[in-house]
Amino acid sequence: MNDMRSARTLRQVQVAVTVQRSLHHQHPPPPARSAGIVGAPFCKGQSRGGVEDGPERIRAAGLQRRLQQLGCAVKDYGNLTFEDMSPDEPMGLLKSVRAVGAANQKLSEAVRAVKEDGHTAVMLGGDHSLAIGSIHGHSAAVGELSVVWVDAHADINTPLTTYTGNIHGQPVSYLLHELRSKVPVLPNFSWLKPCVSAADVVFIGLRDVDPAEHYILKMLGVKTFSMSEVDQLGVARVMEETCDYLSARGKKPIHLSYDIDAIDPSVAPATGTPVVGGLTYREGVYITEHLCQTGLLSAVDLVEVNPLRGQTEEDVRSTVSTAVDLLLGCFGRVREGNHLPDYRLPDP
Amino acid sequence: MNDMRSARTLRQVQVAVTVQRSLHHQHPPPPARSAGIVGAPFCKGQSRGGVEDGPERIRAAGLQRRLQQLGCAVKDYGNLTFEDMSPDEPMGLLKSVRAVGAANQKLSEAVRAVKEDGHTAVMLGGDHSLAIGSIHGHSAAVGELSVVWVDAHADINTPLTTYTGNIHGQPVSYLLHELRSKVPVLPNFSWLKPCVSAADVVFIGLRDVDPAEHYILKMLGVKTFSMSEVDQLGVARVMEETCDYLSARGKKPIHLSYDIDAIDPSVAPATGTPVVGGLTYREGVYITEHLCQTGLLSAVDLVEVNPLRGQTEEDVRSTVSTAVDLLLGCFGRVREGNHLPDYRLPDP
Amino acid sequence: MNDMRSARTLRQVQVAVTVQRSLHHQHPPPPARSAGIVGAPFCKGQSRGGVEDGPERIRAAGLQRRLQQLGCAVKDYGNLTFEDMSPDEPMGLLKSVRAVGAANQKLSEAVRAVKEDGHTAVMLGGDHSLAIGSIHGHSAAVGELSVVWVDAHADINTPLTTYTGNIHGQPVSYLLHELRSKVPVLPNFSWLKPCVSAADVVFIGLRDVDPAEHYILKMLGVKTFSMSEVDQLGVARVMEETCDYLSARGKKPIHLSYDIDAIDPSVAPATGTPVVGGLTYREGVYITEHLCQTGLLSAVDLVEVNPLRGQTEEDVRSTVSTAVDLLLGCFGRVREGNHLPDYRLPDP
Repeated sequence: MNDMRSARTLRQVQVAVTVQRSLHHQHPPPPARSAGIVGAPFCKGQSRGGVEDGPERIRAAGLQRRLQQLGCAVKDYGNLTFEDMSPDEPMGLLKSVRAVGAANQKLSEAVRAVKEDGHTAVMLGGDHSLAIGSIHGHSAAVGELSVVWVDAHADINTPLTTYTGNIHGQPVSYLLHELRSKVPVLPNFSWLKPCVSAADVVFIGLRDVDPAEHYILKMLGVKTFSMSEVDQLGVARVMEETCDYLSARGKKPIHLSYDIDAIDPSVAPATGTPVVGGLTYREGVYITEHLCQTGLLSAVDLVEVNPLRGQTEEDVRSTVSTAVDLLLGCFGRVREGNHLPDYRLPDP
Repeated sequence: MNDMRSARTLRQVQVAVTVQRSLHHQHPPPPARSAGIVGAPFCKGQSRGGVEDGPERIRAAGLQRRLQQLGCAVKDYGNLTFEDMSPDEPMGLLKSVRAVGAANQKLSEAVRAVKEDGHTAVMLGGDHSLAIGSIHGHSAAVGELSVVWVDAHADINTPLTTYTGNIHGQPVSYLLHELRSKVPVLPNFSWLKPCVSAADVVFIGLRDVDPAEHYILKMLGVKTFSMSEVDQLGVARVMEETCDYLSARGKKPIHLSYDIDAIDPSVAPATGTPVVGGLTYREGVYITEHLCQTGLLSAVDLVEVNPLRGQTEEDVRSTVSTAVDLLLGCFGRVREGNHLPDYRLPDP
Repeated sequence: MNDMRSARTLRQVQVAVTVQRSLHHQHPPPPARSAGIVGAPFCKGQSRGGVEDGPERIRAAGLQRRLQQLGCAVKDYGNLTFEDMSPDEPMGLLKSVRAVGAANQKLSEAVRAVKEDGHTAVMLGGDHSLAIGSIHGHSAAVGELSVVWVDAHADINTPLTTYTGNIHGQPVSYLLHELRSKVPVLPNFSWLKPCVSAADVVFIGLRDVDPAEHYILKMLGVKTFSMSEVDQLGVARVMEETCDYLSARGKKPIHLSYDIDAIDPSVAPATGTPVVGGLTYREGVYITEHLCQTGLLSAVDLVEVNPLRGQTEEDVRSTVSTAVDLLLGCFGRVREGNHLPDYRLPDP
């Protein structure tokens, strides 16, 4: 074979290789994974403008193209539209309850549809209150879930313990069976039934936890890896223990809810509530690589990218680019590289 | 109970919660820890102006308030005042010997008083020559000590081996029994008797060690974890080995002498002698969390924050903020959060 | 002895110490190591100007002086000169083939001479295509080699698989016995015979690997530690496994080919193809410390420092300074410090 080709010029082979590449491009093997992307440009779970621009910035950084380069099929369901609900009077401290309730109802239906279409759901936030609808919709489609919540914050305040009134600090309490009696009836939330057990949740990256949140986590015995544990165990053992813990409860589909503020502000500064001492870029990516390899990853939220919170365009670029890399890690990108199964090395 | 409250509005409960919080604030449980803060705005152990502003900057960043939020009692003893000793003629290379001797005598008495009042001593420098007085005063009050010295430098030159003449590079040699014969009689140091055994000292974070210092460390068999060992073992095992090593010699009160230049200059640039390749913020904090959990931490120096050495205000802010977080770690702050023992989760 | 000296003043002792130091300087013990430095200001293995200034910038940062301070002998062979070969027509995609071939032939001879003079060779690039000549010349002098390739990229494309046509992404394929049949005959490369076995190569730091490169690495079973493995195992275990693996094949002289882009762009931004998520400064240095301690390190390439690619002078300074520290680590610098064997601590 080598002999037969020996007379061909380098240029001829390169052309042949290029053609072969483009054939690969036209007839890729059936993708092992497919991503169904839902944009949720919603910001009323907190008080800083800008986070509603997250979905467009993440898309503009080439998410779809780069997922496809991995051999992943992609369907982009576009952005949800949320009616303006400006006259949403606060309930005590609690802000924008009606808007958050309505937006999450819509999102729940959208994520459910994505799952029913057979995709791994990708929800691009928007703020982290959107995990309510995303997890609810995911669960509505597939049943019981494991939830991996990667975040500087526990987001498990109840409407009664919140200091800030921002619902993006409360979504977990709305979702847990065990906290049903602690969350009051709220307008536009009648569609929501708790759908996750506390024992099916693992937190990673915590470093700014309110007293009430700490009380709840301890009371419910929730598995948490704060940054202290990440420092102590290393991210590899954290992920091993996370997956051992979850799979001991049955191999349920995993919902990864990734708040970009889990990543250190030196890497991902463009977010509403940055906290020093976060995950490195490498740790952040390692988490996604590891979860992808379980084969159980069924939905991902990527939230709290806020392009208006960067002080420079480089701040925003770095934050968005990190968000994209986290998503690529969820869909099979590995740093050692990869190649299609039928790759053939060209001979001269 | 839940039933009884069911008619109350969300706002009523939130008000009740707020009142309960403020009652907590007025009648906190007896604090497990109390901090006695001494400011030592002294800079003559080295040659760069600005380090005398460390105590005020660290206080202005909210140290007292944040310690109190942890449930820690705080008594601020204010700043020591040091007479101007400008005409302090050098002795050979050695600079400001008389000023350093007098300042440390005063500091020794102050730290001794703080310890006799029952507090954990917090000495805010100023430069690292102040460890002479701080450790001496601590030992005068409580007897034999373990010393954990976290620093890019070993600070164990003798007056005869120093290249720079700056006493902030020498304090350990003044304090060790084993080096008594190597340190000459110096003016204003007659009050000082060596009070620490080399076997009771552990160094962490070394990465810029003079040949004479290296000779001394090896000659005395001092336990050291240079950055190579931190890289090799990880900070968690370094702290485990540190505490195992020290407690094998009896559970003596621990004096933590923390030079901010142990932390990487990308995090804590506002210091006189930054050295690349330092501890991360997370490693730096982990050290304090771990030592706090021993229950033996009896005094802390936080030195070499120099607001004039930052190139930007952000450099200074980051350095000072890191210093505060290190101190909070010494007094029980943990990244997983905490709550008061009598916390009750509000019902709707 | 102490008594005899007790009357001497501090100044007298300090003077004596200074004299002793300078005597040490004039008559150091025979150095355990000697470095033979070859500068290779060559940039045609890639398309960005500036990388040819690497050697001068690294020298200007005090490489020679700092190596000597470690007790290392240094001979600087100066810079190679490369004729201008501007009309080097591309072969298909492949750029500057003739220039790269001629430059590497010259470099191979120079490195061979350095090794025959008995030095540890230090090749300062220039781009990474220069590893062809450096490794070839090294092998010509000493025979079979182990190669440790520290790089964000695998640089193992063949002339037929390259996307970019830049030979700095291909040097490994030219050097491996196993890929001989995959690399076509190229002008100015007739001097080159493959001289390295795939089983003698270890890659560290990979995070941007082309599909064809991944195929080749897997096909040949090359030992690789991508950033995923560095995250998983930690750099200490990576180095342990690297050295165990290599020494199981016989203790061959080690050629370390260090691309500065292995280091994270936050530390070493001034390079042509930076990739996020790289080695920390500390990990980068640890690799050199560990390899130095094997006693087998026989040649080092330090390549791809490109002063024109930094956005600020600080970017360039940090990159160059890191390059120097990596080289110092190769020649015995350790972060715990060191002292000459005959050091005597001065008495007062």
